[in-house]
Amino acid sequence: MAQKPSIPKGTRDFSPTEMTRRNYIFDTIKSVFKTYGYQPIETPAMENLSTLMGKSGAEGDKLLFKILNSGDFLNKIPDSITIGTKFQNASVTEFTGFISEKGLRYDLTVPFARYVVQHRNEITFPFKRYQIQPVWRADKPQRGRYREFFQCDVDVIGSKSLLNEVELVQIIDKVFSELKINNIIKINNRKVLLGIAEYIGETEKFTEITIAIDKLDKIGIDKVKEELSANGIASEAIEKLEKTLNFQGNVNQKIDFLKSILENSSAGSEGIQEVSEVFDTLEDLELNSEIEFDLTLARGLNYYTGAIFEVIAKNVKIGSICGGGRYDDLTGIFGLPDVSGVGVSFGADRVYDVMLEQNLFPATTQNTTQVMFVNFGEKEQKHCISLVNKLRKAGINTELFPDSAKMKKQMNYANNNNIPFVVLIGENEMTQGTLTVKDMEAGKQNSYQNLDDFIAQLKS
Amino acid sequence: MAQKPSIPKGTRDFSPTEMTRRNYIFDTIKSVFKTYGYQPIETPAMENLSTLMGKSGAEGDKLLFKILNSGDFLNKIPDSITIGTKFQNASVTEFTGFISEKGLRYDLTVPFARYVVQHRNEITFPFKRYQIQPVWRADKPQRGRYREFFQCDVDVIGSKSLLNEVELVQIIDKVFSELKINNIIKINNRKVLLGIAEYIGETEKFTEITIAIDKLDKIGIDKVKEELSANGIASEAIEKLEKTLNFQGNVNQKIDFLKSILENSSAGSEGIQEVSEVFDTLEDLELNSEIEFDLTLARGLNYYTGAIFEVIAKNVKIGSICGGGRYDDLTGIFGLPDVSGVGVSFGADRVYDVMLEQNLFPATTQNTTQVMFVNFGEKEQKHCISLVNKLRKAGINTELFPDSAKMKKQMNYANNNNIPFVVLIGENEMTQGTLTVKDMEAGKQNSYQNLDDFIAQLKS
Repeated sequence: MAQKPSIPKGTRDFSPTEMTRRNYIFDTIKSVFKTYGYQPIETPAMENLSTLMGKSGAEGDKLLFKILNSGDFLNKIPDSITIGTKFQNASVTEFTGFISEKGLRYDLTVPFARYVVQHRNEITFPFKRYQIQPVWRADKPQRGRYREFFQCDVDVIGSKSLLNEVELVQIIDKVFSELKINNIIKINNRKVLLGIAEYIGETEKFTEITIAIDKLDKIGIDKVKEELSANGIASEAIEKLEKTLNFQGNVNQKIDFLKSILENSSAGSEGIQEVSEVFDTLEDLELNSEIEFDLTLARGLNYYTGAIFEVIAKNVKIGSICGGGRYDDLTGIFGLPDVSGVGVSFGADRVYDVMLEQNLFPATTQNTTQVMFVNFGEKEQKHCISLVNKLRKAGINTELFPDSAKMKKQMNYANNNNIPFVVLIGENEMTQGTLTVKDMEAGKQNSYQNLDDFIAQLKS
Repeated sequence: MAQKPSIPKGTRDFSPTEMTRRNYIFDTIKSVFKTYGYQPIETPAMENLSTLMGKSGAEGDKLLFKILNSGDFLNKIPDSITIGTKFQNASVTEFTGFISEKGLRYDLTVPFARYVVQHRNEITFPFKRYQIQPVWRADKPQRGRYREFFQCDVDVIGSKSLLNEVELVQIIDKVFSELKINNIIKINNRKVLLGIAEYIGETEKFTEITIAIDKLDKIGIDKVKEELSANGIASEAIEKLEKTLNFQGNVNQKIDFLKSILENSSAGSEGIQEVSEVFDTLEDLELNSEIEFDLTLARGLNYYTGAIFEVIAKNVKIGSICGGGRYDDLTGIFGLPDVSGVGVSFGADRVYDVMLEQNLFPATTQNTTQVMFVNFGEKEQKHCISLVNKLRKAGINTELFPDSAKMKKQMNYANNNNIPFVVLIGENEMTQGTLTVKDMEAGKQNSYQNLDDFIAQLKS
């Protein structure tokens, strides 16, 4: 017998149950996105390496899955010629360029920026788009980290209005309310962080400071301070920073405090203004999520320039389940400068894990089939086909077991597939035009005078 | 300015309008699949080359997009060492094995077979699954042929019952009825074709015969005969074959004719029995599609062993829009022999093209946003936010233009995005609590006393 087949490490198959649950998450997210006027786009899995490379630094490039050029160009070289003779003087860089020009996308942000620039003349700005597709990263696979996973991105590009920030918070709130995930939405602003860097006298080290703060949750304050120090930040500055980040109080108190220390920073003042406008508007809305102005939120990515967001699930240790922010020049790298945008990305895999751990999937996500008819043989099958089709016409997902197999096998099938109702039509039922129906969960059998009675029961 | 970015040839971006239309097709197909009790699965884009290679012959292997091994193993070689020194004695085959172990799937059939074998202990057979995912082929791109495209496969595996064939025809009929595509479902049976090969005395050449017949539509009978002759099939056999395939008549007449010539072929008799049972059952069902017993239908793929299907759209020259058949040993290659299955695959791209050409997309697929509020400024925005949120709560997809831009820009946005209703709330409307609404298609303005009246109108 052949070896049992497998899939590449870090990738996954999704079974019907997993798919139904994942679709429940995706459908909820999509529906909320649409409610707010966002439209779907999709981009190819493969992008040119020139599009993908150099966008997230050397670290990003390492995560790229590169695709061998097609047209089996290597196979055209006869096996009698060795690679050594064919590519005698080629350096590794030259050779890699020769064998690969395409790669799999590692996020949806770079393809989105590329899309906007490429289609700028067809797009009416502001462009509100969402995109739900897999991405691939040649990362070391580990628990909760995969080489193929889905991102759910929602962005608006071409508008500086803070209403977009407010609506994104509403979207986050609505998605997690629908999914019944208790959560905290953390908000901060990179301009406020820049103001703080100015205030502590380390404007030049802004990037190093945000990268270090970003790790606070993971490594703790002492290690963050070590990292800051190692990056040449003065110890008085570090102390001042720690005090600032440690300030306790509600949103208004934090804003007043920041106003007092950042009055000389124009970036800082702008950031405070933005934060207070967003929180003011949010206050009037009825949100279910806890909203927090978190000065320690930094977001590692360098392209953020204004508001930043991060969402964590309460009572589950799994990291952030959603995050994003405003960027002022995402498309500049592709030749379209000065287009501001803001967006967030939902981590479908983590959302799935949270829902599984907290038992939040509704019973309807167990299976999509509602009714199965047992197959007792040729004559019964003929009788059942028309009933099955009537149920289907009534919008009820229904199966007729295809073979007149042993009763046990058929009931097992219904049971393993979580089908809630099994219809048994034998000689008696056929003569009388009735239905015997087993309610699989209750373990009870009911009789129905006719199909319409059963349909009425199912729809009640 | 940087060069305008592009995407790899043979791949596509999908705009919001294209996405909404494509989703209309996918949602229709999925909904029908579920009605018949099929469940979704998904498999990774990447499979091990050992899974993919050698499954569709050398031709199939050439279509593979191979993925370079990750972990930048090539980059670890310093650029001072040339490929020539590093791989001095490696043959091309050895070298290719060294640099690539994974590839992108080129269909959903091979991954499905792999899935069934890998998860055999978790699956309750018969396993009714559907799978809608992109596939990649390093084919020469041309009109209507892409390097990345979606397949929509529906298969049941682990049941020999002909009820499955009948239900697949019902599924095809239902999908194209819902999409309003006039179509012909052609049905044949490979056992009947095998019987005919026996009848003309060319059993050994069965594969060559089916491959040649498969091209009948494209190259015509004369070229088919040339190909048969070139493959060493006797001219009397070719004439006998032509006469058989040319037989005209309805289903019953064809069956009677075949019975008379294939009485000595056990495969042929079995095939006739299967065809007549499928047609008998179909006769009692109310189908919209035209159903045809087409002796010239062959399907090139060698793994089909029973019923075969192909669907064409009437009045559109585009080739088949759906096709499939029964296979008796798809999983054998992965070590699980004797599992019979049957399935069909819908060609989403061709279905899209047919619908576009025949103008079959409903107006609702233009845009998912129903209402846009014009933004007249800070005060009006504040007033509108709560109205917008009430509409959203009522399930109506609504946008508030994020900036108080010029009227013309805002109306252009609504117009270009096909948003049917634009709400204008200025000073007057704010004081009176009324709404002025522009019906974009009718070009008329209406006044509503309050939001509820407008909601009622939208829902009517």
